[in-house]
Amino acid sequence: MFLRDHWYVAALSSELTTKPITRQILGEHVALYRVASGEVVALADQCPHRGYPLSLGTVVGEQLVCGYHGFTFDCAGTCVAVPGQDRIPSRLSVRRYPSIERGPWVWIWMGHGEADESALPDTPWLTDADVWSCVAGVATIDASFDLLVENLLDLSHETYLHSGSIGTPEVSTTPIEVEVDEDARVVRVFRHMNDVVCPPFYSRTTGLDGHVDRWQDIDYSPPGFYLLHARIGPVGRPPMPDGSDNHAFHMKILYGLTPASEGRVHDFWVLARDFCVVDREIDAFLAKMQTGVVQEDVDALNVLQARTQSAPEFNEVSIKIDRGGLAARRLLAAMTEAALSS
Amino acid sequence: MFLRDHWYVAALSSELTTKPITRQILGEHVALYRVASGEVVALADQCPHRGYPLSLGTVVGEQLVCGYHGFTFDCAGTCVAVPGQDRIPSRLSVRRYPSIERGPWVWIWMGHGEADESALPDTPWLTDADVWSCVAGVATIDASFDLLVENLLDLSHETYLHSGSIGTPEVSTTPIEVEVDEDARVVRVFRHMNDVVCPPFYSRTTGLDGHVDRWQDIDYSPPGFYLLHARIGPVGRPPMPDGSDNHAFHMKILYGLTPASEGRVHDFWVLARDFCVVDREIDAFLAKMQTGVVQEDVDALNVLQARTQSAPEFNEVSIKIDRGGLAARRLLAAMTEAALSS
Amino acid sequence: MFLRDHWYVAALSSELTTKPITRQILGEHVALYRVASGEVVALADQCPHRGYPLSLGTVVGEQLVCGYHGFTFDCAGTCVAVPGQDRIPSRLSVRRYPSIERGPWVWIWMGHGEADESALPDTPWLTDADVWSCVAGVATIDASFDLLVENLLDLSHETYLHSGSIGTPEVSTTPIEVEVDEDARVVRVFRHMNDVVCPPFYSRTTGLDGHVDRWQDIDYSPPGFYLLHARIGPVGRPPMPDGSDNHAFHMKILYGLTPASEGRVHDFWVLARDFCVVDREIDAFLAKMQTGVVQEDVDALNVLQARTQSAPEFNEVSIKIDRGGLAARRLLAAMTEAALSS
Repeated sequence: MFLRDHWYVAALSSELTTKPITRQILGEHVALYRVASGEVVALADQCPHRGYPLSLGTVVGEQLVCGYHGFTFDCAGTCVAVPGQDRIPSRLSVRRYPSIERGPWVWIWMGHGEADESALPDTPWLTDADVWSCVAGVATIDASFDLLVENLLDLSHETYLHSGSIGTPEVSTTPIEVEVDEDARVVRVFRHMNDVVCPPFYSRTTGLDGHVDRWQDIDYSPPGFYLLHARIGPVGRPPMPDGSDNHAFHMKILYGLTPASEGRVHDFWVLARDFCVVDREIDAFLAKMQTGVVQEDVDALNVLQARTQSAPEFNEVSIKIDRGGLAARRLLAAMTEAALSS
Repeated sequence: MFLRDHWYVAALSSELTTKPITRQILGEHVALYRVASGEVVALADQCPHRGYPLSLGTVVGEQLVCGYHGFTFDCAGTCVAVPGQDRIPSRLSVRRYPSIERGPWVWIWMGHGEADESALPDTPWLTDADVWSCVAGVATIDASFDLLVENLLDLSHETYLHSGSIGTPEVSTTPIEVEVDEDARVVRVFRHMNDVVCPPFYSRTTGLDGHVDRWQDIDYSPPGFYLLHARIGPVGRPPMPDGSDNHAFHMKILYGLTPASEGRVHDFWVLARDFCVVDREIDAFLAKMQTGVVQEDVDALNVLQARTQSAPEFNEVSIKIDRGGLAARRLLAAMTEAALSS
Repeated sequence: MFLRDHWYVAALSSELTTKPITRQILGEHVALYRVASGEVVALADQCPHRGYPLSLGTVVGEQLVCGYHGFTFDCAGTCVAVPGQDRIPSRLSVRRYPSIERGPWVWIWMGHGEADESALPDTPWLTDADVWSCVAGVATIDASFDLLVENLLDLSHETYLHSGSIGTPEVSTTPIEVEVDEDARVVRVFRHMNDVVCPPFYSRTTGLDGHVDRWQDIDYSPPGFYLLHARIGPVGRPPMPDGSDNHAFHMKILYGLTPASEGRVHDFWVLARDFCVVDREIDAFLAKMQTGVVQEDVDALNVLQARTQSAPEFNEVSIKIDRGGLAARRLLAAMTEAALSS
């Protein structure tokens, strides 16, 4: 059971060319590609003739030609040519999924009915290249969606799992505050670490090498969008009363959490920063660091999922640090129940 | 449920030596080997003592010695020696399957009762080395038997899947004719392409580099024998009224389709040609080309099977080009029903 | 269903350091490691917080720190630290399994209630380094526990499976004697081969290169302990009436048979010899030979298990040589029934 009537990240913008890729999203196989005009197209990845994946086909102009028997589809998913005859049976068309490209991410609507564009998460940091520099990536994890949500909502794991990059002792020892906005359907987790050592991830990029104030403020909008506001500033100098904060460094760490299938999840990420903008060396450093961090999560969650499945009678114990994850679980459960009863 | 009372190709003649091989056929594991005299033997691949595969044993003279505890079997599958005692329990024998060697292929009878040698498909091209040169091979596909049958009966896929070797636009655009001979249990598909470009597969081997008449006439004898009569001739010069056709080049493309198990099939092939006979360079070229063609089918069918299983609610749509495959399906279904009710 | 109230070999002593390993034993995942003092600890390999394998954690002094969120456990499995708070919930502890180190082996008690140390098999050869030199190893087999037991109780397979090392024709042709001591729960199998060729395994190590008397006397104590008394002596010179046997060479070949899970088993072994003691070259030769022998068993049993599962309707046939294995089966079945009814 997936929450369908939401936007999910389907691909990195950079992944999509006129050579189609395939990706499983909410249990469905989707062919993703660009036609000659550059437009992104997302079609059900199954030729209606004999079921061959359309993603193995070839883009010719604005059309996609199936790689098995040449059935040809336009951008709307309508069949426009078949082998050996001129008449095209009316049932020969495939579903096109609405998609929207925003900076490094391409979102998809897998839901019933019309796509609700107003429900698309607001991500100004991805498109304002004058102020923000972005690096992006994706990993797929053989673990349930829930395990990834819990991983991201309890960052105390940074101290242990990511000790070489972003984890310092204070991430684990600092108590958190949690807020749940039921109406806006957002879980917020605040962790303000003041006068602490700056980890390599930030010291190398900001040039700060002594103590800093380091804040991690999470906004999780279930099901698929997670936003971490990271602030690194000089000790004892919070943002000004009017909200301006030019003396600090800011990073927006976005995750697009997209269920692939039961027990499999795509983990899209973007790092957007307001410092060293257009510095390609910093881009490369951050991309490499974050790829390593994400791989540590992938490895851990793969193991956790496999272990969970081979020893299913486990009864977890929660502590205060889990309040964010538990709130997310409750919200997801309520949304699932609402979807089932609608 | 397999159609048992038929001959199937079990092995290439060249695969069988005094070092046994194992192959799953119609769900059963079979040990295939030659004894010292050169005779081919096919035994149930399971020692009756503790079930170890006999194919891991050693041929000694006319006998096969199990590799685990040394139980020894003659060509009839009768146990003739056991460790530590002289008396041999009467239950210690294994099934020998009838087999017949014909040129590059070894056929096997997996059926109930006596093997019906008169039912063996006629394949004169495999044994008359004065007139026909053969190259042969085999691949195993992780796809259902039905997917392979449909692949071979709708050659319009050559244009897309095999575009580098045998596929030209006309294979896909030329309408086909289909005949079903219910009594002889043969499905025939005719595709006569006249005045068309000669594909590399034939231009390199026949020396024809301009336009040709290219005919593809299929005789499919379910379940396991498929024969494609390929004719490449000068434009506008069909066979003579008396049937003689010396001004054209002929290739007999034989497929032995042998179910391995549910969802797995062996794809044996032979190319027999009546031109450039005993030209080893042409042999090597054709073997390499055909191995590539078959691998393209293997890759496509593996993907199709995997996709079919992960999205099982697919409803196919058929067009005219599918008439051959649909006729084959009906014939196979009728044969299965007849087998079940007998 | 496993026989739990017994000692099983859990690890080689040499495998355990302050870097934990994980091993599945009787269906349960166990983290095995040494703390700073050198003491061996065996904990249930699952953090009670979110189930992450504790074996991926880090030993710090006498404690183990979970690699995901830093939950920390002492040697008794009691949680002594959690992130973000001082109070430690009482449910946060993990099971510690009793373990005992004896020479190259570490035994574990997976049973209910108190560990019964008096039930630990007696293995003086593993600890008396003045008289006995040991080499040890372990392999894990994707086969059922029963297949390994039968393999070890019917050594006639040495002739065929291990012909390059320990197998000679006489192992297979010599009749065996079998005794079952129901009270002591031991199956004994005797095979005395007199005036036979000495196989490479023993000729290289004892220096005997002509004919020898070679005895193989098995004591199998179900479920998990197998002891082969191997005696290589000059022809026609049995042990003296008083039991002394200084003119012969002795090897104790011990196997610890530890079920990993249904269809998977750990195969621990030790070779203890009373000749060439402290000769490291002989150690290396024997370790290499025995590793090869065990690998031959692993390969055979992996194949046998896979084949058994894909052709499950097999009905075995037994002969005299199987009496040891059949007796072991009966004893194991009786023990299982007793365990179920207690």
